[in-house]
Amino acid sequence: MLYLIGLGLAKGDMPYRAKEVLKRAELFAESYTSFIGDEYIEEIEKEAGKEIKRLERSDLEEKASEIVGKARDRDIAVLTGGDPLIATTHKILFIEAKKRGVRTEVMHAGSIITAAIGESGLDFYRFGQVITIPEWSEKYKPLSFYEVIDRNLSNGQHSLLLLDYSEVKGSSMSIRAALEEIEAAEAHYRKGIISRGTSIIVMKDVSHGNAERLYCSLEEAKEKDLGPGPALIIIPSKISDVEKEVMDSMYPR
Amino acid sequence: MLYLIGLGLAKGDMPYRAKEVLKRAELFAESYTSFIGDEYIEEIEKEAGKEIKRLERSDLEEKASEIVGKARDRDIAVLTGGDPLIATTHKILFIEAKKRGVRTEVMHAGSIITAAIGESGLDFYRFGQVITIPEWSEKYKPLSFYEVIDRNLSNGQHSLLLLDYSEVKGSSMSIRAALEEIEAAEAHYRKGIISRGTSIIVMKDVSHGNAERLYCSLEEAKEKDLGPGPALIIIPSKISDVEKEVMDSMYPR
Repeated sequence: MLYLIGLGLAKGDMPYRAKEVLKRAELFAESYTSFIGDEYIEEIEKEAGKEIKRLERSDLEEKASEIVGKARDRDIAVLTGGDPLIATTHKILFIEAKKRGVRTEVMHAGSIITAAIGESGLDFYRFGQVITIPEWSEKYKPLSFYEVIDRNLSNGQHSLLLLDYSEVKGSSMSIRAALEEIEAAEAHYRKGIISRGTSIIVMKDVSHGNAERLYCSLEEAKEKDLGPGPALIIIPSKISDVEKEVMDSMYPR
Repeated sequence: MLYLIGLGLAKGDMPYRAKEVLKRAELFAESYTSFIGDEYIEEIEKEAGKEIKRLERSDLEEKASEIVGKARDRDIAVLTGGDPLIATTHKILFIEAKKRGVRTEVMHAGSIITAAIGESGLDFYRFGQVITIPEWSEKYKPLSFYEVIDRNLSNGQHSLLLLDYSEVKGSSMSIRAALEEIEAAEAHYRKGIISRGTSIIVMKDVSHGNAERLYCSLEEAKEKDLGPGPALIIIPSKISDVEKEVMDSMYPR
């Protein structure tokens, strides 16, 4: 059996029923699509009484076949940040197992998607398509994310923007870098949907003790730069009266 | 401190760090917006060594102020299905606490939103706005959900349709009833976006041992009617080649 076990957002978010499985299974953890602290993994290792093998992204892509092969005869558990089947790279294992008829069990856990939307104060049903802001390289500076924000706004929908995660840096891109890309996209498309004065929401370390949440202008968000850590941006469409009332109680003034 | 603790989708999905809190807090559980089995609540009661008080929807709305008041001086934990801040009714407590300056901690857990999208095989980033299909009464038969499906399809986006939950019946509406409403909406709007032959996904009991997942025509889904239990429908937009390859390995043929 191949178990895909979600670690959620913060230390201790793993479903408690996973503990039984960890005792009998060979354990792997991926470490590249989200922030899984070493401390969290070490706590689980202690509980399970065995080592958890760390996988890099390249490992997982190469070793998917090997891991699934092992799971044919014995219990293998792969621990992943967030909710296991959301990141495409985690899904590789699931699909490989399905193709080869290897039994799977997924233990779902908290995802940044529903956590951030819930903690924003905005209405879940008013969000449009989710977007990842790509980290630019010297040679590749895509801007097409702007088209999704534009379409969401035209539809009266809020946009949740996840920030690209760099395995090399071990962190997501900074809020400031993402906001600069959005400004560059506005300068390119010139549809006038975003300016320095646009009110946006930024969040860092959702669900952690040091979580930060701001509702302010794009310019202020750039200046405050919340520092490293898993972060995201929400570009709201027109905020309803009910949403406004909720938000009034939730954000520092 | 007011703790809002997610119970996720299946028995044992609660974050393991919640266990420490349950020992010292007064416990409440809501039972009306999702399927939280009695067995699951009893297991937690046994673990915590105390009773968990059950709240009906009307209770929660009336008692929000009382519960938050208690949380000013001692630890109160409210257990909720899925991820706590997604359902509007759960958010009432969170907002009330924020307004009155009562400290809160949210423990996020698996949500049907990310679980169902992950298990559908479709690309998370291609989903548009999420919709709830309302259960019709004699006097109130809203059809406007159709407009959201139509817009999602026009944008090349998949639609996740949640099914209204009836506290009275203790179950969500049936897949068959939801599909009949969709057909009635098509007959009303006549945009030709859905017919008996349209390929759709239906899922029941996501994340449970008896989970069912079908990819078939609307007509077949109506005939198979998967019976009672938490269910949902996905109306895919054009499925990409990558999505198709994934789905080929995931659905019974």
